[in-house]
Amino acid sequence: MGVSKIASVDVIPKINEQFPSDDTLFLKFASSDLDSDGKEKALIEGVAKIHKKSDQKYNYVAKIEVPEGFGEIGAVIVELKENSTERFIDTIFIKNLGGSTIEPGETDGLSGMIRRIYTYLVVLFAIIRLVLESVTRCIKSLFRAPPVQQGSTTTGALGSPLNANCSTSETPVTFSCNSWIQPKNLIPDQRRIFFSTKSYLPGKTPAGLLKLRKEDLANLRGEKADGTTDKNERKAFERIYDYDVYNDLGDPDIDPEWTRPVLGGSDEYPYPRRCRTGRPHTTLDRSSEKRVEGDFYVPRDEAFSEVKQKMFPPNAGKKNKLGTNPFPNFTEVDLMFRDGIEIPPSSHDILKFNIIATLNSSDQPAPPSVQPDIIQPDSTKLKFPPPEALKRDKFLWLSDGEFARQTLAGLNPYCIQLVKSWPLKSELNPEDYGPQESGFTTELVQKLIGISITVEEAIAQKKLFVLDYHDILMQYVEKVRSIRWTTLYGSRTLFFLNSDDTLEPLAIELTRPPMDGKPQWKKVYTPSIDHATDIWLWRLAKAHVLAHDSCVHQLVVHWLRTHCCMEPYAIALNRQLSTMHPIYRLLHPHFRFNMRINANAREILINAGGIIESTFSARGYCMEFSSLVYKKEWQFDTQALPEDLIRRGMAERDDKAPHGLKLAIKDYPFANDGLILWEALVEWMTEYVNHYYPDDKAIKNDKELEAWWNEIKEKGHPDKKNEAGWPTLETPKDLIQIVSTIAWVGCGHHSAVNFIQYAHAGYFPSRPSIARINMPTEDFDIIPEKFINNPESVMLEAFPSIAQASTVAQTMLILSAHSPDEEYIGKKIEPAWAEDPMIAKAFDKFKMKLDKLEKTIDQRNENSELKNRRGVGLVPYEVLKPTSGFGVTGKGVPYSVST
Amino acid sequence: MGVSKIASVDVIPKINEQFPSDDTLFLKFASSDLDSDGKEKALIEGVAKIHKKSDQKYNYVAKIEVPEGFGEIGAVIVELKENSTERFIDTIFIKNLGGSTIEPGETDGLSGMIRRIYTYLVVLFAIIRLVLESVTRCIKSLFRAPPVQQGSTTTGALGSPLNANCSTSETPVTFSCNSWIQPKNLIPDQRRIFFSTKSYLPGKTPAGLLKLRKEDLANLRGEKADGTTDKNERKAFERIYDYDVYNDLGDPDIDPEWTRPVLGGSDEYPYPRRCRTGRPHTTLDRSSEKRVEGDFYVPRDEAFSEVKQKMFPPNAGKKNKLGTNPFPNFTEVDLMFRDGIEIPPSSHDILKFNIIATLNSSDQPAPPSVQPDIIQPDSTKLKFPPPEALKRDKFLWLSDGEFARQTLAGLNPYCIQLVKSWPLKSELNPEDYGPQESGFTTELVQKLIGISITVEEAIAQKKLFVLDYHDILMQYVEKVRSIRWTTLYGSRTLFFLNSDDTLEPLAIELTRPPMDGKPQWKKVYTPSIDHATDIWLWRLAKAHVLAHDSCVHQLVVHWLRTHCCMEPYAIALNRQLSTMHPIYRLLHPHFRFNMRINANAREILINAGGIIESTFSARGYCMEFSSLVYKKEWQFDTQALPEDLIRRGMAERDDKAPHGLKLAIKDYPFANDGLILWEALVEWMTEYVNHYYPDDKAIKNDKELEAWWNEIKEKGHPDKKNEAGWPTLETPKDLIQIVSTIAWVGCGHHSAVNFIQYAHAGYFPSRPSIARINMPTEDFDIIPEKFINNPESVMLEAFPSIAQASTVAQTMLILSAHSPDEEYIGKKIEPAWAEDPMIAKAFDKFKMKLDKLEKTIDQRNENSELKNRRGVGLVPYEVLKPTSGFGVTGKGVPYSVST
Repeated sequence: MGVSKIASVDVIPKINEQFPSDDTLFLKFASSDLDSDGKEKALIEGVAKIHKKSDQKYNYVAKIEVPEGFGEIGAVIVELKENSTERFIDTIFIKNLGGSTIEPGETDGLSGMIRRIYTYLVVLFAIIRLVLESVTRCIKSLFRAPPVQQGSTTTGALGSPLNANCSTSETPVTFSCNSWIQPKNLIPDQRRIFFSTKSYLPGKTPAGLLKLRKEDLANLRGEKADGTTDKNERKAFERIYDYDVYNDLGDPDIDPEWTRPVLGGSDEYPYPRRCRTGRPHTTLDRSSEKRVEGDFYVPRDEAFSEVKQKMFPPNAGKKNKLGTNPFPNFTEVDLMFRDGIEIPPSSHDILKFNIIATLNSSDQPAPPSVQPDIIQPDSTKLKFPPPEALKRDKFLWLSDGEFARQTLAGLNPYCIQLVKSWPLKSELNPEDYGPQESGFTTELVQKLIGISITVEEAIAQKKLFVLDYHDILMQYVEKVRSIRWTTLYGSRTLFFLNSDDTLEPLAIELTRPPMDGKPQWKKVYTPSIDHATDIWLWRLAKAHVLAHDSCVHQLVVHWLRTHCCMEPYAIALNRQLSTMHPIYRLLHPHFRFNMRINANAREILINAGGIIESTFSARGYCMEFSSLVYKKEWQFDTQALPEDLIRRGMAERDDKAPHGLKLAIKDYPFANDGLILWEALVEWMTEYVNHYYPDDKAIKNDKELEAWWNEIKEKGHPDKKNEAGWPTLETPKDLIQIVSTIAWVGCGHHSAVNFIQYAHAGYFPSRPSIARINMPTEDFDIIPEKFINNPESVMLEAFPSIAQASTVAQTMLILSAHSPDEEYIGKKIEPAWAEDPMIAKAFDKFKMKLDKLEKTIDQRNENSELKNRRGVGLVPYEVLKPTSGFGVTGKGVPYSVST
Repeated sequence: MGVSKIASVDVIPKINEQFPSDDTLFLKFASSDLDSDGKEKALIEGVAKIHKKSDQKYNYVAKIEVPEGFGEIGAVIVELKENSTERFIDTIFIKNLGGSTIEPGETDGLSGMIRRIYTYLVVLFAIIRLVLESVTRCIKSLFRAPPVQQGSTTTGALGSPLNANCSTSETPVTFSCNSWIQPKNLIPDQRRIFFSTKSYLPGKTPAGLLKLRKEDLANLRGEKADGTTDKNERKAFERIYDYDVYNDLGDPDIDPEWTRPVLGGSDEYPYPRRCRTGRPHTTLDRSSEKRVEGDFYVPRDEAFSEVKQKMFPPNAGKKNKLGTNPFPNFTEVDLMFRDGIEIPPSSHDILKFNIIATLNSSDQPAPPSVQPDIIQPDSTKLKFPPPEALKRDKFLWLSDGEFARQTLAGLNPYCIQLVKSWPLKSELNPEDYGPQESGFTTELVQKLIGISITVEEAIAQKKLFVLDYHDILMQYVEKVRSIRWTTLYGSRTLFFLNSDDTLEPLAIELTRPPMDGKPQWKKVYTPSIDHATDIWLWRLAKAHVLAHDSCVHQLVVHWLRTHCCMEPYAIALNRQLSTMHPIYRLLHPHFRFNMRINANAREILINAGGIIESTFSARGYCMEFSSLVYKKEWQFDTQALPEDLIRRGMAERDDKAPHGLKLAIKDYPFANDGLILWEALVEWMTEYVNHYYPDDKAIKNDKELEAWWNEIKEKGHPDKKNEAGWPTLETPKDLIQIVSTIAWVGCGHHSAVNFIQYAHAGYFPSRPSIARINMPTEDFDIIPEKFINNPESVMLEAFPSIAQASTVAQTMLILSAHSPDEEYIGKKIEPAWAEDPMIAKAFDKFKMKLDKLEKTIDQRNENSELKNRRGVGLVPYEVLKPTSGFGVTGKGVPYSVST
């Protein structure tokens, strides 16, 4: 005698997709136990038929007979009919057949009364859910919204009728799939195996599931039955995770100018690995992979949800050399954010994408910072909502205080560093780059800081800070200057720390290496309030530094350190940790959509002739530049927030200080908010890791974990595998630091440097992506008449062209927008976390800490003592507030690097 | 036997006016000599008939027979037919009848050949004139253009045919009349007497002209044959010069709010006198004169030329309480100078006047700073050409350096002064105005200037300067604050002199006296580059100071010290110095149109509810305020440039220094250019005065001169006649200083403070005429949320309203525009000056000095060492360049205060 069970499968159709009314899914159920012979028990089969359709979900139900002693069902294998379309399997529930449940096949004959009772129950539960905050974990788990297609929390109430039974003593087995399956004929040799929400370390895998666990990982690695690995060109429907170098950015077959070096795999251009796509090589360069626009493979489950896809341009767009015309005057710049500007003749196709319409046409309420009244769909003009900084203070871009504050509370708080030794000196070869000595002489700096403190004292008292882009940019100056309408310098910007914790810019040094037969040129610019010429030269010098900072921010702090470095962790996670592995389940949300956004970036942003190259200082050398910084600076261990701060001299260890860190600048908004988030993350991960790994032995015994960590180094970052900075993974503490670091990069780090891009850089004078012309005093100290008579025109020539500025603004707007299905950190518990009461409790603590962080940030922003956060016309520092509404809000920390 | 002479009269018609073809003028000629009986010889009569008409001139010719021994003709009396229209008599020439001249009556029969010869001659002379710089004084004199109707120099070639005869040995007698005559029936009891261009001191008057000299002066004073003075209401066609107090600014019968005190004649409100109009008093206030719009009498010859009249609104316009709506944002402010703004609903009628169209529709080339492309006549929008400062640097208004530079090279270089004693202290009664101590404590100022120099040293070394509007404004704060949408403070602004001669603003102190039960409030604001809140507070504090400076500039430096003070000098000149008096002829050009522009000002600018009151800080107390400053500060002697500089501590006597003055700030553009102009003026006037007054006795003997100078004090400035500052007039040196001072005020002083008004103040953020709201920190130190979140809106509320800003901009534009017939200093010699070779030579020297000044100014503006004149985006200091084209050019020094 067995027991009758119901297997209920929730399938989410694509928008407007209709499934046939007689559609079926083929299900096979595996026992967690072996049979008495130590072999896997035979699978139980079932056919699930369409049972019910709600607005956004189909429910399929199969009745199965489970033999006595079959044991717990630990895995389900799902198959589609041949030639069916792919299906997104949301969740599978398996439950004993009770009196109130529905017989499969009776669906159509169900009486109206039962239907009504069911509806009432559903509504009742929905109401209870909304009213009570303290619902049991069980109810939370069952009512959880499908994470991929829907961000809404209430739709969960429309779940399977089986959900209504959660109060019965027997808990149904849940399989949180969230995965696309393909019809049998497409991937004939791979079975789609789903494990229940209960997590297991490899050594604790229920015996009956061991083989399936391995089989699924082998599938994900593309290992075939014969032991070989599938090295074919990948298809969009596949789910194979593999590594490759960055060899698909160039496009030499289209234009030899678009030849780019392969990044990764060489001493010259070390780089993290990307997801292998396996496309054929280009004709002209066998080391480069052919680009096929619109076909940049990622494993099927890495693709964007349909709702998120709407937030991005529907197609890659043609590459276009962007127009070089500058804005004619600042009024036109202003009007870009009011009436709009005519789309410039040579512009990027991304400008055709109406992100504003997307943000506004959604049924979500419009975000506060996007004004619906700027939409004039009939106009041929390109309109941008006024960025937050511009809205609050139109003249903020001129402020030196804001220039300094941005290093602590702007979109790039990752580059300011303490001056630890003096004088500053280049490490570059003087034969190639000229004298190494900085123009910031002690005498000059002494004059700038006044005589109340000596330079030595200022350094000893940690009062001098620097943005040092000298050595990393100098190597590209000559190359970049060969491109028309572009220039470059090495730069250093020196700041002094005032007693009220604000930074004051002291001076900017711009350097050009020897080139074109001319010697090194170097000049120090200082702020001025009294001298018109100095004011404008300083403004231009600031524009150069801001362009450098924009370039470093975008290519290094944003792209390299978050997007790019996360991808190999994600690949390794999928290849080496089973979906039932607790660390897989801990980290998986932190990789959501990362591979897809990175593939998009390779398609239109970081590719040769792409948006970044067209609009940022390093132009065609942008990616080489990021490889240089990866080579010189990147280490895994310093990606953790405290270590990053210590590395830059912005903090030192101090057990008595909050978070164990004493900040060099007490009012460092990014660090202060970030450390709370970091600490909450570490605490959550500590409880999680310690729960599964009670001791070092548990770590040692976890071969999947070992393989994952090794693969990150050896396959994900092979060019740096022998460099410093890789922690050993021998203790739970090691693991906590590793997973916390990865999670931080995916959430806190990325959010801090991404979601206020439009707020601060949308108005390009605040933060030009590029400075296009030399300083008027380069090589000569005579001020040109044109600069004397019309400095505005010189400034606008230096600033990005109309085409560049609008392309960057559009890109920033897209990148700064949260999609309606954004998953914010700590907001909703994962089904697998909810499965275990200890973890669920830890998550609740995490959530509460984050709720408190929201309030702390609000309080800090209202505190007038904190001059780096609050002041007239300043954008408050909200970017690390964990949650957000939809759109461009300047706050909200999603789990992953997905934008 | 006598001799036949031709009297040729040039009469300039009004635009489109046609005289009857049989029109005649009745002429009577007086001999300079008495007959043998010591009596006046009988007048010779003649009738001049129309002889020829050119485009802009009618020529009348009379043939007369002069008896042998009649002597030189020294005066002509001109009469019109009864009921004729008034005629403008330009010049009368009398010459012996020679072969090549034309017989009267033969005009129509003149053969074509003679006509052609004549034309060729005229053209030939015109060419010679254009080609040769060194034409003889004679030719210069004859070719002089009619000064009133035409500014062009070439039209002179179309003068009387008699002019062509200048190479003959006999010089014709010239009567440069430039005067309106009325038909006999209008002014039956006065003869219109014109004297020849030869000037005579009273004691040297040709005996035959003595009575006529007296008769003409009596006419001008309105003295009747019976010895009484005509005290009737004056009519527009009259030419009577008399004095009155400023009692026609208020309009109590229309609105009691528009009651204003009489300025002049009391201890409380001392004031210079204006030209008497004699209108009846108002119903409500018997001390006030009724206002009749469009009927503000000035003597007929003081009226504007038709071409100049076009530069002003055709009628006064209704008084209107101006709208209070601020600009919604700075983009709208910008668009005011590009697309224009909708005319605000409650606005002044002056906005209906299209000055731009006038500037552009003229046959003169458009001035460089007025862009014709902004004209869109079909639009309902109000458009303004971009003011020079805005054109050169849109962000200049934010610059502290420019804020300081404006005190030395802006439109008000007359208020900056050296700090001579320390600490600064109010002289006001502390019981009324609170503590007298300034908030600029030594400790604070020491902190602001750094520790390299003490405050005491800085004062000793003349490094501290101040704009001190504390005491003069404090007395109006409570009064002005009772008016809605207005506020006021007492203010002081402290500057430090950098080693490169630029000024650096150190701090602004704003003070409110005790009022509304609250104690005195006082706060010092300092510039900041680092702190957003401080930056904005400083910007607001600057706006207040600029509004104070605008008010002081407009009411005191511009109106009171030039326009208003010049008028009684002009009245006295006309009443006491004969038109044949050399000092009359020296000074007359310096009064051109002054009385008319002042009458216009009384009509629409300085009247109750007029433009100034509606738009400047002191509101309804503007004129009281100017009376207060007249009382406290005004002295005749310190109106001379060197004395003014010395008074303010900006210079000290130093015989070794250029101009005998050592400037406290070497690069003080106004002083440097002004002193060259001053010196040229003094040199010219020295030669002129010394020529006519070889010794002190000559001065003493000149009763007209004595009467003039006494009348200036006793009738022109009677409220101050017993105050200090009136030089004695006993020596030629005294006279030189007096006439130089008057001339300087009329040309250099007025030009410096007038013609760059639009350039620097047209864009109101650079120089608001008013600051309308209190500092956000007044009484409280809490920063309001509105200011935190939207400082732009707070700033725009503080700035003038749309209606105010556009009214002021329009007014500035009108005031800053040179009319096509502008008479620039030293450009053309007056006929009477040309008459005497010594004077003509002196004038040539004067002219050459001014030509050199033009070049000197250009060179200075190109010298990068002079940081107060040259720098990126700065408007060069050109305002004292003597000549200019037509329109708004920011340069050009007319003789007189006529705009």
